[in-house]
Amino acid sequence: MTIILDGNKLSQEIRSEIQLNLANFQLAKTNPPKLSVILVGEDPASSVYVRNKERACTSAGILTETFNIPADVSEEYVINQIQELNQNVQVNGILVQLPLPPHINETTVISAISPSKDVDGIHPYNLGKLAQGEPIFVPCTPLGIQQILVRHNISIPGKHVVVCGRSNIVGKPIANLLMQRGPDANATVTVCHSQTRNLQLLTSNADILIAAIGQPNFITEDMVKEDVSIIDVGINRIPDSSKKNGYRLVGDVDFINVEKKAHAITPVPGGVGPMTITMLLNNTVKSWIIQNNLSGDVA
Amino acid sequence: MTIILDGNKLSQEIRSEIQLNLANFQLAKTNPPKLSVILVGEDPASSVYVRNKERACTSAGILTETFNIPADVSEEYVINQIQELNQNVQVNGILVQLPLPPHINETTVISAISPSKDVDGIHPYNLGKLAQGEPIFVPCTPLGIQQILVRHNISIPGKHVVVCGRSNIVGKPIANLLMQRGPDANATVTVCHSQTRNLQLLTSNADILIAAIGQPNFITEDMVKEDVSIIDVGINRIPDSSKKNGYRLVGDVDFINVEKKAHAITPVPGGVGPMTITMLLNNTVKSWIIQNNLSGDVA
Repeated sequence: MTIILDGNKLSQEIRSEIQLNLANFQLAKTNPPKLSVILVGEDPASSVYVRNKERACTSAGILTETFNIPADVSEEYVINQIQELNQNVQVNGILVQLPLPPHINETTVISAISPSKDVDGIHPYNLGKLAQGEPIFVPCTPLGIQQILVRHNISIPGKHVVVCGRSNIVGKPIANLLMQRGPDANATVTVCHSQTRNLQLLTSNADILIAAIGQPNFITEDMVKEDVSIIDVGINRIPDSSKKNGYRLVGDVDFINVEKKAHAITPVPGGVGPMTITMLLNNTVKSWIIQNNLSGDVA
Repeated sequence: MTIILDGNKLSQEIRSEIQLNLANFQLAKTNPPKLSVILVGEDPASSVYVRNKERACTSAGILTETFNIPADVSEEYVINQIQELNQNVQVNGILVQLPLPPHINETTVISAISPSKDVDGIHPYNLGKLAQGEPIFVPCTPLGIQQILVRHNISIPGKHVVVCGRSNIVGKPIANLLMQRGPDANATVTVCHSQTRNLQLLTSNADILIAAIGQPNFITEDMVKEDVSIIDVGINRIPDSSKKNGYRLVGDVDFINVEKKAHAITPVPGGVGPMTITMLLNNTVKSWIIQNNLSGDVA
């Protein structure tokens, strides 16, 4: 029987743990963790994501504040706002919802966040610490993937992990995370992408396959070996006239046909997606713990 | 005929280019690039490395100053020295010769260097920029490896690069460098290490094999395929009674037996080694160009 790696269920478990963990701290009653979110413009998808993050924080015991900023403000305005939050000792995490409007440089804005409050783990300093094997804040999706594997007892050390995709928020950081020393890592890691030749030969060699490509049903049955464990990061809309909204969500993996060959696989939706927000909570609490010199059990 | 990738010859060529490049700038006559080196203690090998760096800088037209600091100074003293150099507009590059005495934390000291003067490319900020595919200063050995390949017309895009070893100064940064988009990268990259299973299967699949393990003659003929290109980063001493000093230097690759199968291979010594210092010169000139808002041709 293939194990379906249920990200919703695991997320609920971890969120309960975070809540319980917080309840053990007296400080959480008077001075709970706080996440500040900057949302520039009115992109509907971004608004939904921010709403979901706010709700998840609230239910875990984390304060949030969201700065809704019109799309036509200057880059300087956004950076000033970030610098104020950097200074504010009440703020433990700063998240800038991406994408930003085209006249604002994302690299410049992200680099303005204090690395010690970069709970998304995407500041170059934090990516460098990750690459050195001394991570402070790991980007949320890669950290969520690692947690899915670890908490389902899918052993990582010595395994061949093949990552398809080399984005800055998934492919490259998950590769850098799993190749490090340590009981939840120590994998042999291959990173494939659009320029890879003989992709099928490489994916067929994977003990753990991580698909983060953004192409619906790209990974097919003939590309994986028996008993592979599969993490599907893709969230793609494909037309479906049987649905009221005219589409359904599918991953990068042809789930129906690949599932039967796999030892374990994440569904889409309900796999990696919910874990990403959960790891944002984890990182915000971690930041709060560090800033207040507490000690606590976080990833 | 196997191509012997002569790092001494290539280094001389690139050093001449750097010298010629500098001669084109009027500023180089009044205000040449300057590298500041911090050497703590009296480790004989470190002293030799620093001497070699000083000499290479001088002959390329780069000023150097070396701060020789007794081994028993405090970490604070070293950091204060770095902060002075960070402030000094005459200084373009700061290099702390490693290793440091055990009472001084290397991570803390390296993190104290301004990323804009970190010509060794080992500050977490610069490693993060590298991982994001927006490198400023690439660590010298990985940059030297890329230059060896590019300047010998060994095409990298689409090739399967297998890296053996995951150190912070070679294995991980060369993986992060060659997996990025771009004409001198775009490789499919696998990182292997001490916990890798079926190593031979993986190395046999390499179009380009990079050995950075630190074990003499570890890569043997049966581990590589015909026409592989091999970069040997290892520098190991093995006993040799025929030598006056009682040892000789060998790489991580069993050169004599592997050479005949390879399309191209670096010798040890005289392969990667000289390129490392040459890339330090490159990075110092690059820093000088950036700090003075000039434009120039550097890697």
